[in-house]
Amino acid sequence: MKIATLGPEGTFSHEAVLKYSNDAEILFNGTIMGIFESVAGGKAKLGIVPIENSVAGTVGQTLDCLVKFGIKIRDEMILPIRHHLAGFGNANDIRNIRTLYVHPQTYEQCELFVKRFLPKAEIIETSSNGKSAEIVAKSKDKASASIIPKTATSIYGLRMIKKDVQDSRFNVTRFFAVGNSNNKKTGYDRTSIAVYPQIDKPGLLYNMLGEFAKRKINLTKIESRPSKGKLGDYIFYIDFQGHKSEKHVNESLKVIEGSFFVNVLGSYPRKY
Amino acid sequence: MKIATLGPEGTFSHEAVLKYSNDAEILFNGTIMGIFESVAGGKAKLGIVPIENSVAGTVGQTLDCLVKFGIKIRDEMILPIRHHLAGFGNANDIRNIRTLYVHPQTYEQCELFVKRFLPKAEIIETSSNGKSAEIVAKSKDKASASIIPKTATSIYGLRMIKKDVQDSRFNVTRFFAVGNSNNKKTGYDRTSIAVYPQIDKPGLLYNMLGEFAKRKINLTKIESRPSKGKLGDYIFYIDFQGHKSEKHVNESLKVIEGSFFVNVLGSYPRKY
Repeated sequence: MKIATLGPEGTFSHEAVLKYSNDAEILFNGTIMGIFESVAGGKAKLGIVPIENSVAGTVGQTLDCLVKFGIKIRDEMILPIRHHLAGFGNANDIRNIRTLYVHPQTYEQCELFVKRFLPKAEIIETSSNGKSAEIVAKSKDKASASIIPKTATSIYGLRMIKKDVQDSRFNVTRFFAVGNSNNKKTGYDRTSIAVYPQIDKPGLLYNMLGEFAKRKINLTKIESRPSKGKLGDYIFYIDFQGHKSEKHVNESLKVIEGSFFVNVLGSYPRKY
Repeated sequence: MKIATLGPEGTFSHEAVLKYSNDAEILFNGTIMGIFESVAGGKAKLGIVPIENSVAGTVGQTLDCLVKFGIKIRDEMILPIRHHLAGFGNANDIRNIRTLYVHPQTYEQCELFVKRFLPKAEIIETSSNGKSAEIVAKSKDKASASIIPKTATSIYGLRMIKKDVQDSRFNVTRFFAVGNSNNKKTGYDRTSIAVYPQIDKPGLLYNMLGEFAKRKINLTKIESRPSKGKLGDYIFYIDFQGHKSEKHVNESLKVIEGSFFVNVLGSYPRKY
Protein backbone atom coordinates (compact mmCIF):
# COMPACT_ATOMS: atom_id res chain seq x y z
CA MET A 1 0.00 0.00 0.00
CA LYS A 2 1.27 3.46 -0.89
CA ILE A 3 1.35 5.86 2.08
CA ALA A 4 2.35 9.52 1.83
CA THR A 5 4.01 11.21 4.80
CA LEU A 6 6.32 14.05 5.84
CA GLY A 7 9.92 13.65 4.69
CA PRO A 8 12.83 13.46 4.55
CA GLU A 9 13.54 9.93 5.85
CA GLY A 10 14.05 9.74 9.59
CA THR A 11 11.30 12.09 10.74
CA PHE A 12 8.79 11.15 13.43
CA SER A 13 6.16 10.93 10.66
CA HIS A 14 8.34 8.28 9.05
CA GLU A 15 8.39 6.42 12.40
CA ALA A 16 4.59 6.68 12.55
CA VAL A 17 4.21 5.05 9.13
CA LEU A 18 6.58 2.20 10.08
CA LYS A 19 4.50 1.62 13.22
CA TYR A 20 1.25 1.68 11.22
CA SER A 21 2.28 -0.69 8.45
CA ASN A 22 5.41 -2.77 7.92
CA ASP A 23 5.00 -3.25 4.18
CA ALA A 24 4.05 0.25 3.05
CA GLU A 25 5.60 1.90 0.03
CA ILE A 26 6.35 5.34 1.48
CA LEU A 27 6.07 8.57 -0.53
CA PHE A 28 7.94 11.34 1.28
CA ASN A 29 6.56 14.84 0.88
CA GLY A 30 7.97 18.16 2.11
CA THR A 31 4.66 19.62 3.30
CA ILE A 32 1.36 18.54 4.83
CA MET A 33 -0.53 20.09 1.91
CA GLY A 34 1.55 17.97 -0.46
CA ILE A 35 0.50 14.82 1.41
CA PHE A 36 -3.18 15.72 1.06
CA GLU A 37 -2.66 16.43 -2.64
CA SER A 38 -1.10 12.98 -3.09
CA VAL A 39 -4.09 11.30 -1.45
CA ALA A 40 -6.65 13.45 -3.30
CA GLY A 41 -4.92 12.78 -6.62
CA GLY A 42 -4.76 9.02 -6.05
CA LYS A 43 -0.93 8.88 -5.91
CA ALA A 44 -1.19 7.44 -2.38
CA LYS A 45 -3.97 5.42 -0.77
CA LEU A 46 -3.39 6.94 2.68
CA GLY A 47 -1.63 9.93 4.16
CA ILE A 48 -0.15 9.85 7.66
CA VAL A 49 -0.03 13.30 9.23
CA PRO A 50 0.62 14.71 12.72
CA ILE A 51 -2.42 16.32 14.34
CA GLU A 52 -1.21 17.28 17.82
CA ASN A 53 1.80 17.02 20.08
CA SER A 54 1.51 17.11 23.85
CA VAL A 55 4.21 19.80 24.09
CA ALA A 56 3.86 21.81 20.86
CA GLY A 57 0.04 21.59 20.54
CA THR A 58 -2.18 21.22 17.48
CA VAL A 59 -0.79 21.12 13.94
CA GLY A 60 -2.95 23.77 12.28
CA GLN A 61 -1.98 22.86 8.73
CA THR A 62 -3.48 19.38 9.17
CA LEU A 63 -6.79 20.74 10.44
CA ASP A 64 -6.97 23.23 7.59
CA CYS A 65 -6.25 20.56 4.97
CA LEU A 66 -8.89 18.22 6.41
CA VAL A 67 -11.50 20.93 5.94
CA LYS A 68 -10.20 22.04 2.54
CA PHE A 69 -9.68 18.67 0.84
CA GLY A 70 -12.72 16.84 2.25
CA ILE A 71 -10.50 13.81 2.91
CA LYS A 72 -11.61 11.60 5.82
CA ILE A 73 -9.84 10.55 8.99
CA ARG A 74 -9.59 6.74 8.87
CA ASP A 75 -7.45 6.06 11.94
CA GLU A 76 -5.59 7.68 14.82
CA MET A 77 -2.36 6.58 16.42
CA ILE A 78 -0.22 7.75 19.31
CA LEU A 79 3.56 7.84 18.97
CA PRO A 80 5.79 8.49 22.00
CA ILE A 81 8.31 11.17 21.01
CA ARG A 82 11.77 10.15 22.12
CA HIS A 83 14.80 12.21 21.17
CA HIS A 84 18.34 10.82 21.19
CA LEU A 85 21.75 12.44 21.11
CA ALA A 86 23.54 10.81 18.16
CA GLY A 87 26.86 11.10 16.35
CA PHE A 88 30.18 9.28 16.18
CA GLY A 89 31.31 9.60 19.80
CA ASN A 90 30.18 7.67 22.89
CA ALA A 91 28.65 8.61 26.23
CA ASN A 92 32.04 9.63 27.73
CA ASP A 93 32.58 12.13 24.94
CA ILE A 94 29.54 14.30 25.62
CA ARG A 95 31.69 17.07 27.11
CA ASN A 96 33.80 17.10 23.93
CA ILE A 97 30.88 17.88 21.62
CA ARG A 98 31.47 21.34 20.23
CA THR A 99 28.67 21.58 17.64
CA LEU A 100 25.08 20.42 17.98
CA TYR A 101 22.80 20.23 14.93
CA VAL A 102 19.18 20.35 15.95
CA HIS A 103 15.73 21.25 14.60
CA PRO A 104 14.29 24.26 16.51
CA GLN A 105 11.22 22.33 17.74
CA THR A 106 13.40 19.45 18.88
CA TYR A 107 15.67 21.94 20.66
CA GLU A 108 12.65 23.37 22.50
CA GLN A 109 11.80 19.89 23.73
CA CYS A 110 15.36 19.15 24.92
CA GLU A 111 16.45 22.61 26.05
CA LEU A 112 17.08 21.70 29.71
CA PHE A 113 19.17 18.68 28.69
CA VAL A 114 21.29 20.75 26.28
CA LYS A 115 21.87 23.52 28.84
CA ARG A 116 22.94 21.03 31.48
CA PHE A 117 25.06 18.59 29.47
CA LEU A 118 26.27 20.63 26.48
CA PRO A 119 26.50 24.15 27.91
CA LYS A 120 29.42 25.11 25.66
CA ALA A 121 28.33 23.50 22.39
CA GLU A 122 27.45 25.78 19.49
CA ILE A 123 23.80 25.20 18.55
CA ILE A 124 23.17 25.11 14.79
CA GLU A 125 19.50 24.96 13.85
CA THR A 126 18.38 22.79 10.94
CA SER A 127 15.18 22.54 8.93
CA SER A 128 14.28 18.96 9.98
CA ASN A 129 15.41 16.09 12.20
CA GLY A 130 16.42 14.15 9.09
CA LYS A 131 18.63 17.06 8.04
CA SER A 132 20.34 17.18 11.48
CA ALA A 133 21.28 13.51 11.08
CA GLU A 134 22.45 13.95 7.50
CA ILE A 135 24.80 16.85 8.31
CA VAL A 136 26.48 15.00 11.19
CA ALA A 137 26.73 11.79 9.11
CA LYS A 138 28.55 13.67 6.34
CA SER A 139 30.88 15.49 8.78
CA LYS A 140 32.27 12.21 10.22
CA ASP A 141 33.34 14.41 13.14
CA LYS A 142 33.34 13.15 16.76
CA ALA A 143 32.96 16.72 17.99
CA SER A 144 29.62 17.10 16.17
CA ALA A 145 26.31 15.61 17.28
CA SER A 146 22.59 15.82 16.55
CA ILE A 147 19.38 15.20 18.47
CA ILE A 148 17.17 12.91 16.38
CA PRO A 149 14.54 10.14 16.38
CA LYS A 150 15.71 6.52 16.66
CA THR A 151 14.80 5.74 13.03
CA ALA A 152 17.20 8.44 11.85
CA THR A 153 20.17 6.96 13.73
CA SER A 154 20.07 3.72 11.71
CA ILE A 155 19.19 5.38 8.37
CA TYR A 156 22.17 7.75 8.62
CA GLY A 157 24.52 5.32 10.36
CA LEU A 158 24.94 7.30 13.58
CA ARG A 159 25.64 5.93 17.05
CA MET A 160 23.22 6.71 19.87
CA ILE A 161 25.38 8.67 22.34
CA LYS A 162 22.65 9.22 24.93
CA LYS A 163 19.07 7.92 24.83
CA ASP A 164 15.94 9.83 25.78
CA VAL A 165 17.21 13.37 26.11
CA GLN A 166 13.72 14.96 25.91
CA ASP A 167 12.93 17.19 28.93
CA SER A 168 9.38 15.95 29.49
CA ARG A 169 8.83 12.24 30.02
CA PHE A 170 5.32 12.76 28.68
CA ASN A 171 5.82 13.73 25.07
CA VAL A 172 3.54 12.09 22.54
CA THR A 173 2.32 12.98 19.06
CA ARG A 174 -1.07 11.93 17.79
CA PHE A 175 -1.21 11.11 14.07
CA PHE A 176 -4.13 10.66 11.70
CA ALA A 177 -4.25 8.24 8.78
CA VAL A 178 -6.38 10.01 6.15
CA GLY A 179 -7.98 8.60 3.02
CA ASN A 180 -10.81 8.88 0.54
CA SER A 181 -13.49 6.75 2.21
CA ASN A 182 -15.51 6.52 5.42
CA ASN A 183 -15.19 3.92 8.19
CA LYS A 184 -17.91 1.61 9.51
CA LYS A 185 -18.84 1.63 13.19
CA THR A 186 -16.69 -0.55 15.48
CA GLY A 187 -18.49 0.29 18.73
CA TYR A 188 -15.41 2.03 20.19
CA ASP A 189 -15.05 5.07 17.94
CA ARG A 190 -14.23 8.73 17.97
CA THR A 191 -15.59 11.42 15.66
CA SER A 192 -13.90 14.70 14.70
CA ILE A 193 -15.91 17.65 13.43
CA ALA A 194 -15.21 21.24 12.40
CA VAL A 195 -18.03 23.71 12.97
CA TYR A 196 -18.41 27.32 11.94
CA PRO A 197 -21.11 29.58 13.44
CA GLN A 198 -23.76 30.70 10.91
CA ILE A 199 -24.80 33.59 13.15
CA ASP A 200 -23.09 35.67 15.83
CA LYS A 201 -24.93 35.19 19.11
CA PRO A 202 -23.59 34.97 22.68
CA GLY A 203 -23.83 31.49 24.22
CA LEU A 204 -23.70 29.68 20.85
CA LEU A 205 -20.80 27.47 21.92
CA TYR A 206 -22.40 26.80 25.29
CA ASN A 207 -25.65 25.70 23.65
CA MET A 208 -23.80 23.45 21.23
CA LEU A 209 -21.94 21.70 24.06
CA GLY A 210 -25.33 21.30 25.78
CA GLU A 211 -26.53 19.12 22.89
CA PHE A 212 -23.62 16.75 23.51
CA ALA A 213 -23.91 16.91 27.32
CA LYS A 214 -27.60 16.05 27.42
CA ARG A 215 -26.96 12.91 25.30
CA LYS A 216 -23.99 11.94 27.52
CA ILE A 217 -21.54 12.26 24.60
CA ASN A 218 -18.03 12.72 25.95
CA LEU A 219 -15.97 15.52 24.39
CA THR A 220 -12.27 14.65 24.20
CA LYS A 221 -10.92 17.78 22.50
CA ILE A 222 -12.14 21.26 21.70
CA GLU A 223 -10.22 24.02 20.03
CA SER A 224 -11.16 27.35 18.54
CA ARG A 225 -8.99 28.70 15.74
CA PRO A 226 -9.26 32.02 13.93
CA SER A 227 -11.08 31.34 10.65
CA LYS A 228 -9.66 32.77 7.45
CA GLY A 229 -12.36 35.44 7.36
CA LYS A 230 -11.64 38.12 9.91
CA LEU A 231 -10.14 38.27 13.36
CA GLY A 232 -12.65 37.19 16.00
CA ASP A 233 -14.36 34.72 13.62
CA TYR A 234 -13.61 31.27 14.90
CA ILE A 235 -13.88 27.71 13.67
CA PHE A 236 -14.30 25.10 16.40
CA TYR A 237 -12.64 21.71 16.11
CA ILE A 238 -14.23 19.10 18.35
CA ASP A 239 -13.49 15.43 19.05
CA PHE A 240 -16.05 13.29 20.84
CA GLN A 241 -16.64 9.62 21.59
CA GLY A 242 -19.03 7.79 19.27
CA HIS A 243 -19.59 7.11 15.56
CA LYS A 244 -21.54 9.48 13.34
CA SER A 245 -23.92 6.64 12.38
CA GLU A 246 -25.04 6.21 16.01
CA LYS A 247 -28.48 7.60 16.82
CA HIS A 248 -27.50 9.90 19.73
CA VAL A 249 -24.56 11.32 17.75
CA ASN A 250 -26.68 11.87 14.67
CA GLU A 251 -29.39 13.63 16.69
CA SER A 252 -26.86 16.02 18.24
CA LEU A 253 -25.36 16.90 14.87
CA LYS A 254 -28.81 17.55 13.39
CA VAL A 255 -29.66 20.07 16.13
CA ILE A 256 -26.26 21.76 15.91
CA GLU A 257 -26.71 22.21 12.16
CA GLY A 258 -29.45 24.71 13.03
CA SER A 259 -26.85 27.30 14.01
CA PHE A 260 -23.52 25.99 12.69
CA PHE A 261 -22.09 24.78 9.41
CA VAL A 262 -20.96 21.28 10.40
CA ASN A 263 -18.18 19.40 8.63
CA VAL A 264 -17.67 15.78 9.80
CA LEU A 265 -13.94 15.08 9.36
CA GLY A 266 -14.32 11.38 10.09
CA SER A 267 -15.36 8.64 12.54
CA TYR A 268 -12.57 6.19 13.37
CA PRO A 269 -11.61 3.53 15.94
CA ARG A 270 -10.31 5.19 19.06
CA LYS A 271 -6.95 4.30 20.55
CA TYR A 272 -7.22 5.91 24.02
CA MET B 1 13.17 49.77 27.95
CA LYS B 2 14.70 46.31 27.49
CA ILE B 3 12.44 43.90 25.57
CA ALA B 4 13.32 40.25 24.92
CA THR B 5 12.04 38.55 21.78
CA LEU B 6 12.70 35.74 19.31
CA GLY B 7 15.81 36.20 17.19
CA PRO B 8 17.71 36.46 14.98
CA GLU B 9 17.09 39.97 13.62
CA GLY B 10 14.46 40.15 10.91
CA THR B 11 11.88 37.72 12.35
CA PHE B 12 8.20 38.61 12.68
CA SER B 13 8.75 38.80 16.45
CA HIS B 14 11.32 41.51 15.74
CA GLU B 15 8.68 43.35 13.65
CA ALA B 16 6.22 43.04 16.53
CA VAL B 17 8.67 44.69 18.96
CA LEU B 18 9.33 47.56 16.51
CA LYS B 19 5.57 48.08 16.23
CA TYR B 20 5.15 47.99 20.02
CA SER B 21 7.92 50.41 20.93
CA ASN B 22 10.24 52.54 18.81
CA ASP B 23 12.93 53.03 21.45
CA ALA B 24 13.28 49.53 22.87
CA GLU B 25 16.63 47.93 23.51
CA ILE B 26 16.01 44.49 22.02
CA LEU B 27 17.46 41.28 23.45
CA PHE B 28 17.22 38.51 20.85
CA ASN B 29 16.74 35.02 22.17
CA GLY B 30 16.70 31.71 20.29
CA THR B 31 13.75 30.18 22.16
CA ILE B 32 10.50 31.19 23.80
CA MET B 33 11.64 29.65 27.08
CA GLY B 34 14.76 31.82 26.91
CA ILE B 35 12.58 34.95 26.61
CA PHE B 36 10.59 33.99 29.71
CA GLU B 37 13.84 33.33 31.59
CA SER B 38 15.12 36.80 30.65
CA VAL B 39 11.95 38.43 31.99
CA ALA B 40 11.84 36.26 35.14
CA GLY B 41 15.52 36.98 35.85
CA GLY B 42 15.13 40.74 35.37
CA LYS B 43 17.37 40.92 32.29
CA ALA B 44 14.41 42.32 30.31
CA LYS B 45 11.41 44.30 31.52
CA LEU B 46 9.07 42.76 28.94
CA GLY B 47 9.04 39.77 26.61
CA ILE B 48 7.21 39.84 23.28
CA VAL B 49 6.09 36.37 22.20
CA PRO B 50 3.78 34.93 19.52
CA ILE B 51 0.65 33.28 20.91
CA GLU B 52 -1.33 32.29 17.80
CA ASN B 53 -1.26 32.57 14.04
CA SER B 54 -4.39 32.44 11.93
CA VAL B 55 -2.87 29.79 9.66
CA ALA B 56 -0.52 27.83 11.91
CA GLY B 57 -2.62 27.97 15.11
CA THR B 58 -1.60 28.34 18.75
CA VAL B 59 2.04 28.50 19.87
CA GLY B 60 2.03 25.85 22.56
CA GLN B 61 5.42 26.80 24.00
CA THR B 62 4.09 30.26 24.91
CA LEU B 63 1.06 28.85 26.75
CA ASP B 64 3.24 26.38 28.63
CA CYS B 65 5.70 29.07 29.68
CA LEU B 66 2.90 31.37 30.88
CA VAL B 67 1.71 28.62 33.23
CA LYS B 68 5.20 27.57 34.30
CA PHE B 69 6.81 30.96 34.94
CA GLY B 70 3.80 32.75 36.50
CA ILE B 71 4.60 35.79 34.34
CA LYS B 72 1.59 37.95 33.42
CA ILE B 73 0.17 38.99 30.06
CA ARG B 74 0.37 42.81 29.97
CA ASP B 75 -0.74 43.50 26.40
CA GLU B 76 -1.82 41.87 23.15
CA MET B 77 -1.10 43.00 19.62
CA ILE B 78 -2.04 41.82 16.14
CA LEU B 79 0.56 41.79 13.37
CA PRO B 80 -0.43 41.14 9.74
CA ILE B 81 1.93 38.51 8.37
CA ARG B 82 3.18 39.58 4.97
CA HIS B 83 5.83 37.58 3.14
CA HIS B 84 7.97 39.05 0.37
CA LEU B 85 10.15 37.48 -2.29
CA ALA B 86 13.55 39.17 -1.88
CA GLY B 87 17.01 38.97 -3.36
CA PHE B 88 19.17 40.84 -5.87
CA GLY B 89 17.01 40.53 -8.99
CA ASN B 90 13.85 42.38 -9.97
CA ALA B 91 10.28 41.40 -10.84
CA ASN B 92 11.21 40.44 -14.44
CA ASP B 93 13.79 37.98 -13.16
CA ILE B 94 11.42 35.73 -11.22
CA ARG B 95 11.62 32.98 -13.86
CA ASN B 96 15.43 33.03 -13.56
CA ILE B 97 15.45 32.21 -9.87
CA ARG B 98 16.98 28.79 -9.49
CA THR B 99 17.30 28.50 -5.69
CA LEU B 100 14.80 29.59 -3.06
CA TYR B 101 15.80 29.76 0.62
CA VAL B 102 12.76 29.59 2.85
CA HIS B 103 11.73 28.64 6.39
CA PRO B 104 9.39 25.57 6.33
CA GLN B 105 6.51 27.46 8.02
CA THR B 106 6.89 30.36 5.60
CA TYR B 107 6.92 27.90 2.70
CA GLU B 108 3.65 26.38 3.94
CA GLN B 109 2.10 29.85 3.88
CA CYS B 110 3.34 30.64 0.35
CA GLU B 111 3.17 27.18 -1.23
CA LEU B 112 0.65 28.07 -3.97
CA PHE B 113 2.70 31.13 -4.99
CA VAL B 114 5.93 29.13 -5.19
CA LYS B 115 4.31 26.34 -7.22
CA ARG B 116 2.85 28.83 -9.66
CA PHE B 117 5.71 31.32 -10.11
CA LEU B 118 8.82 29.32 -9.21
CA PRO B 119 7.91 25.80 -10.32
CA LYS B 120 11.49 24.90 -11.23
CA ALA B 121 13.39 26.53 -8.37
CA GLU B 122 15.16 24.27 -5.89
CA ILE B 123 13.65 24.80 -2.43
CA ILE B 124 16.21 24.90 0.38
CA GLU B 125 14.69 24.99 3.84
CA THR B 126 16.27 27.16 6.54
CA SER B 127 15.88 27.38 10.30
CA SER B 128 14.44 30.94 10.40
CA ASN B 129 13.34 33.80 8.15
CA GLY B 130 16.38 35.79 9.29
CA LYS B 131 18.61 32.92 8.19
CA SER B 132 16.96 32.79 4.71
CA ALA B 133 17.78 36.47 4.24
CA GLU B 134 21.34 36.10 5.53
CA ILE B 135 22.18 33.23 3.14
CA VAL B 136 20.93 35.09 0.06
CA ALA B 137 22.67 38.31 1.17
CA LYS B 138 25.99 36.49 1.44
CA SER B 139 25.53 34.71 -1.93
CA LYS B 140 25.22 38.01 -3.88
CA ASP B 141 23.60 35.79 -6.54
CA LYS B 142 20.74 37.01 -8.75
CA ALA B 143 19.57 33.43 -9.26
CA SER B 144 18.97 33.00 -5.50
CA ALA B 145 16.04 34.44 -3.57
CA SER B 146 14.33 34.17 -0.18
CA ILE B 147 10.83 34.71 1.17
CA ILE B 148 11.08 36.96 4.22
CA PRO B 149 9.41 39.70 6.33
CA LYS B 150 9.86 43.33 5.25
CA THR B 151 12.13 44.11 8.22
CA ALA B 152 14.59 41.47 7.04
CA THR B 153 14.93 43.01 3.56
CA SER B 154 16.40 46.23 4.91
CA ILE B 155 18.49 44.60 7.63
CA TYR B 156 20.17 42.29 5.12
CA GLY B 157 20.23 44.75 2.21
CA LEU B 158 17.98 42.76 -0.13
CA ARG B 159 15.62 44.09 -2.79
CA MET B 160 11.93 43.24 -2.64
CA ILE B 161 11.34 41.33 -5.88
CA LYS B 162 7.63 40.70 -5.32
CA LYS B 163 5.49 41.93 -2.43
CA ASP B 164 2.85 39.96 -0.57
CA VAL B 165 3.44 36.45 -1.79
CA GLN B 166 1.46 34.78 1.05
CA ASP B 167 -1.35 32.53 -0.18
CA SER B 168 -3.99 33.69 2.27
CA ARG B 169 -4.82 37.37 2.40
CA PHE B 170 -5.91 36.80 5.99
CA ASN B 171 -2.74 35.87 7.81
CA VAL B 172 -2.17 37.51 11.18
CA THR B 173 -0.18 36.64 14.26
CA ARG B 174 -1.28 37.64 17.73
CA PHE B 175 1.53 38.51 20.15
CA PHE B 176 1.58 38.94 23.91
CA ALA B 177 3.76 41.38 25.82
CA VAL B 178 4.54 39.62 29.09
CA GLY B 179 6.00 41.04 32.30
CA ASN B 180 6.21 40.73 36.06
CA SER B 181 3.20 42.81 37.16
CA ASN B 182 -0.59 42.98 36.76
CA ASN B 183 -2.61 45.57 34.81
CA LYS B 184 -5.34 47.83 36.14
CA LYS B 185 -8.81 47.77 34.61
CA THR B 186 -9.32 49.97 31.51
CA GLY B 187 -12.99 49.07 30.91
CA TYR B 188 -12.18 47.34 27.59
CA ASP B 189 -10.17 44.34 28.66
CA ARG B 190 -9.63 40.68 27.99
CA THR B 191 -8.61 38.00 30.49
CA SER B 192 -6.76 34.76 29.74
CA ILE B 193 -6.96 31.78 32.08
CA ALA B 194 -5.67 28.21 32.15
CA VAL B 195 -7.83 25.71 34.01
CA TYR B 196 -7.20 22.09 34.92
CA PRO B 197 -10.01 19.78 36.12
CA GLN B 198 -9.65 18.66 39.77
CA ILE B 199 -12.02 15.76 39.20
CA ASP B 200 -13.02 13.66 36.19
CA LYS B 201 -16.77 14.08 35.61
CA PRO B 202 -18.75 14.30 32.34
CA GLY B 203 -20.13 17.74 31.58
CA LEU B 204 -17.45 19.59 33.58
CA LEU B 205 -16.52 21.83 30.65
CA TYR B 206 -20.17 22.45 29.82
CA ASN B 207 -20.91 23.53 33.40
CA MET B 208 -17.89 25.84 33.44
CA LEU B 209 -18.99 27.58 30.26
CA GLY B 210 -22.45 27.94 31.84
CA GLU B 211 -20.94 30.12 34.58
CA PHE B 212 -19.67 32.51 31.92
CA ALA B 213 -22.85 32.32 29.80
CA LYS B 214 -25.21 33.13 32.65
CA ARG B 215 -23.21 36.29 33.47
CA LYS B 216 -23.11 37.28 29.78
CA ILE B 217 -19.31 37.02 29.64
CA ASN B 218 -18.19 36.59 26.03
CA LEU B 219 -15.64 33.84 25.37
CA THR B 220 -13.21 34.74 22.59
CA LYS B 221 -11.02 31.62 22.56
CA ILE B 222 -11.09 28.15 23.99
CA GLU B 223 -8.55 25.43 23.51
CA SER B 224 -7.91 22.10 25.14
CA ARG B 225 -4.35 20.78 25.15
CA PRO B 226 -3.06 17.48 26.48
CA SER B 227 -1.60 18.15 29.93
CA LYS B 228 1.80 16.75 30.77
CA GLY B 229 0.25 14.03 32.94
CA LYS B 230 -1.31 11.35 30.78
CA LEU B 231 -3.10 11.20 27.45
CA GLY B 232 -6.71 12.25 27.83
CA ASP B 233 -5.93 14.71 30.67
CA TYR B 234 -6.50 18.16 29.27
CA ILE B 235 -5.76 21.73 30.28
CA PHE B 236 -8.19 24.31 28.95
CA TYR B 237 -6.99 27.74 27.83
CA ILE B 238 -9.77 30.31 27.70
CA ASP B 239 -9.91 33.99 26.71
CA PHE B 240 -12.93 36.08 27.63
CA GLN B 241 -13.94 39.72 27.64
CA GLY B 242 -13.63 41.55 30.97
CA HIS B 243 -11.06 42.24 33.71
CA LYS B 244 -10.49 39.89 36.60
CA SER B 245 -11.22 42.70 39.08
CA GLU B 246 -14.78 43.10 37.71
CA LYS B 247 -17.52 41.66 39.92
CA HIS B 248 -19.17 39.34 37.34
CA VAL B 249 -15.78 37.97 36.25
CA ASN B 250 -14.66 37.43 39.81
CA GLU B 251 -17.89 35.62 40.69
CA SER B 252 -17.53 33.23 37.73
CA LEU B 253 -13.94 32.41 38.62
CA LYS B 254 -14.88 31.72 42.27
CA VAL B 255 -17.54 29.18 41.23
CA ILE B 256 -15.24 27.52 38.68
CA GLU B 257 -12.57 27.10 41.35
CA GLY B 258 -14.91 24.56 42.96
CA SER B 259 -14.05 21.99 40.28
CA PHE B 260 -10.97 23.35 38.47
CA PHE B 261 -7.52 24.60 39.39
CA VAL B 262 -7.65 28.13 37.91
CA ASN B 263 -4.57 30.06 36.81
CA VAL B 264 -5.22 33.66 35.72
CA LEU B 265 -2.57 34.41 33.07
CA GLY B 266 -3.44 38.10 32.92
CA SER B 267 -6.05 40.81 32.24
CA TYR B 268 -5.03 43.30 29.54
CA PRO B 269 -6.49 45.95 27.21
CA ARG B 270 -8.12 44.26 24.25
CA LYS B 271 -7.22 45.18 20.69
CA TYR B 272 -10.07 43.52 18.74
